[in-house]
Amino acid sequence: MNDIVLAIDVMGGDFGPKTTIEGISMASKIYPNVRFKLYGDKTKSLDQLKENSELNNFEFIHTTENIKADDEPVNALRKLKKSSMRLGIDSIRNSESHGFVSAGNTGALMAISKFVLRTINGIDRPAIAGVLPTMKGQTVVLDLGANVDCSNDNLVQFALMGDIFSKLVLGIKNPKIGLLNVGSEHIKGNLIVKQTFDDLKKISSKINFLGFIEGNDINKGNVDVVVTDGFSGNIALKTAEGVAELIFTFLKNAYNSSLISKIGYLLSKPALNRFKTRIDPRKYNGAVLLGLNGIVVKSHGATDAFGFSNAIGVAISLIENSYVNEIEKKIEI
Amino acid sequence: MNDIVLAIDVMGGDFGPKTTIEGISMASKIYPNVRFKLYGDKTKSLDQLKENSELNNFEFIHTTENIKADDEPVNALRKLKKSSMRLGIDSIRNSESHGFVSAGNTGALMAISKFVLRTINGIDRPAIAGVLPTMKGQTVVLDLGANVDCSNDNLVQFALMGDIFSKLVLGIKNPKIGLLNVGSEHIKGNLIVKQTFDDLKKISSKINFLGFIEGNDINKGNVDVVVTDGFSGNIALKTAEGVAELIFTFLKNAYNSSLISKIGYLLSKPALNRFKTRIDPRKYNGAVLLGLNGIVVKSHGATDAFGFSNAIGVAISLIENSYVNEIEKKIEI
Repeated sequence: MNDIVLAIDVMGGDFGPKTTIEGISMASKIYPNVRFKLYGDKTKSLDQLKENSELNNFEFIHTTENIKADDEPVNALRKLKKSSMRLGIDSIRNSESHGFVSAGNTGALMAISKFVLRTINGIDRPAIAGVLPTMKGQTVVLDLGANVDCSNDNLVQFALMGDIFSKLVLGIKNPKIGLLNVGSEHIKGNLIVKQTFDDLKKISSKINFLGFIEGNDINKGNVDVVVTDGFSGNIALKTAEGVAELIFTFLKNAYNSSLISKIGYLLSKPALNRFKTRIDPRKYNGAVLLGLNGIVVKSHGATDAFGFSNAIGVAISLIENSYVNEIEKKIEI
Repeated sequence: MNDIVLAIDVMGGDFGPKTTIEGISMASKIYPNVRFKLYGDKTKSLDQLKENSELNNFEFIHTTENIKADDEPVNALRKLKKSSMRLGIDSIRNSESHGFVSAGNTGALMAISKFVLRTINGIDRPAIAGVLPTMKGQTVVLDLGANVDCSNDNLVQFALMGDIFSKLVLGIKNPKIGLLNVGSEHIKGNLIVKQTFDDLKKISSKINFLGFIEGNDINKGNVDVVVTDGFSGNIALKTAEGVAELIFTFLKNAYNSSLISKIGYLLSKPALNRFKTRIDPRKYNGAVLLGLNGIVVKSHGATDAFGFSNAIGVAISLIENSYVNEIEKKIEI
């Protein structure tokens, strides 16, 4: 296994093989050194494979078992041992692949990954990390929903994992780390964030901890890593999505409200398209399950082929930069 | 005290008397039946009073003591007993006014209000409630940061207070209530939200509880009341602010990027201004400290006179509709 081998769940996501295979095809052009292992129902994928005939650096592992979006994670783990998701994750443990990408059921992906791959020594719980656009570039936020209750130890581990992610994937030399809270003063917040604040201050030789930040700091770009528990992180992420949707809907209605404003829109369109590109959610697709003995990336279920190819890119970047080894080293220090 | 009497902290906020007195003047034209009691430093307010000479339905209570933005709430409560904020809140307890509006230190406002006014029987802790724009209209969200840790009992009380607020202030007949969580399924979330879910289901004769909602549901307008603890609520609110700021900054840059796009902007401007009006944060200014024996409204410190006058409007609406009595009735049932 010299070249990178990436396992893919062809069946996951709202559009199944149609989107995933097209996304793999797109990614294979960007990453010619990567070999893909496709897990899924070959009969249901044939049309799509034909349509993307330029994709050839792959092997297809046929299985008819599939985890659906509404399957209980526990049931998926116990009963669906031949599913495309399970076989793909198994392939990492069996050293047949370096990582896995799926657009399927997040809860099942987390449960199976934890069970099959286990966490890295020194990491008690994996976290889901995602990248968001800011005024100055990008920031990584974790946890986005894997752990609704977190101890200060969990949060400190998230900070270390986010630090390495920021360095390896986003290329930030000395990532600035912020702890999400309801105020920036030290007296603010609950007991756990206060304790975490003190813990992070103690390891200032290991990380560049800036202190508490608030919700409106996430998009300012003053920090490169936002550390939070999965409850608040998930609410922040989804609230951000909802606000963006609200503003774009209102904006669209405004442009459509008169002929003059429609003409104005057409004139501004090239500039507006560049603006949209900057915050295109497909560009930020690919949430990473950090802290496992293996690279597992979750694509948004509703994304298109371009979005799916970006999730593949995130996985490859983590593999190329030996993310798991780097975390192990960081934890040992 | 037949007419409504509203006490105002003239000194609070980033711009002090300049903004507050102009805001009161604006509000006095909309609410000619309201008498204002202005608390603050008269010497520092004279210029502004002269500039707003049409404002005459008021009485000025002079005090030089003032709570600053960075004063510790505990110190403000114990030591600054002649401050404009304290005297204004005292006036409610002394039946000299029906409510109080301040743009000053939120922590101090909460601490003093709790101490002086106490909570309504049956309400253990006050909550901060705010109104946010949605696809369909408006929704009230509480708690926005008064209580970082909440029990299920607290959250149930917030639901009842939000229900009455939605009815009285927003005019919704049978408000739909949602409990903020990391997923809409019953198995999702921490122990407290799960218990709260069960508790709210039990009082379905009292409120129209729809179940769990997620962060992206806040702005969709599917619910009229969003119930959450002050930690998540504060993060959701501030994240929403940050995302809106990010999008508007990028949008502005896009328009300014070329002459053509600038012309496009000018053509679309009237429509875009209507759009901006729909989500103008000044329109939503005025967070309410719900659950106290009296009406206390917190204006954003950085708002202008128009925003401050809206906060005054929120207070008047609550007073006119006997909010405190309505909560007492609802709790008793």
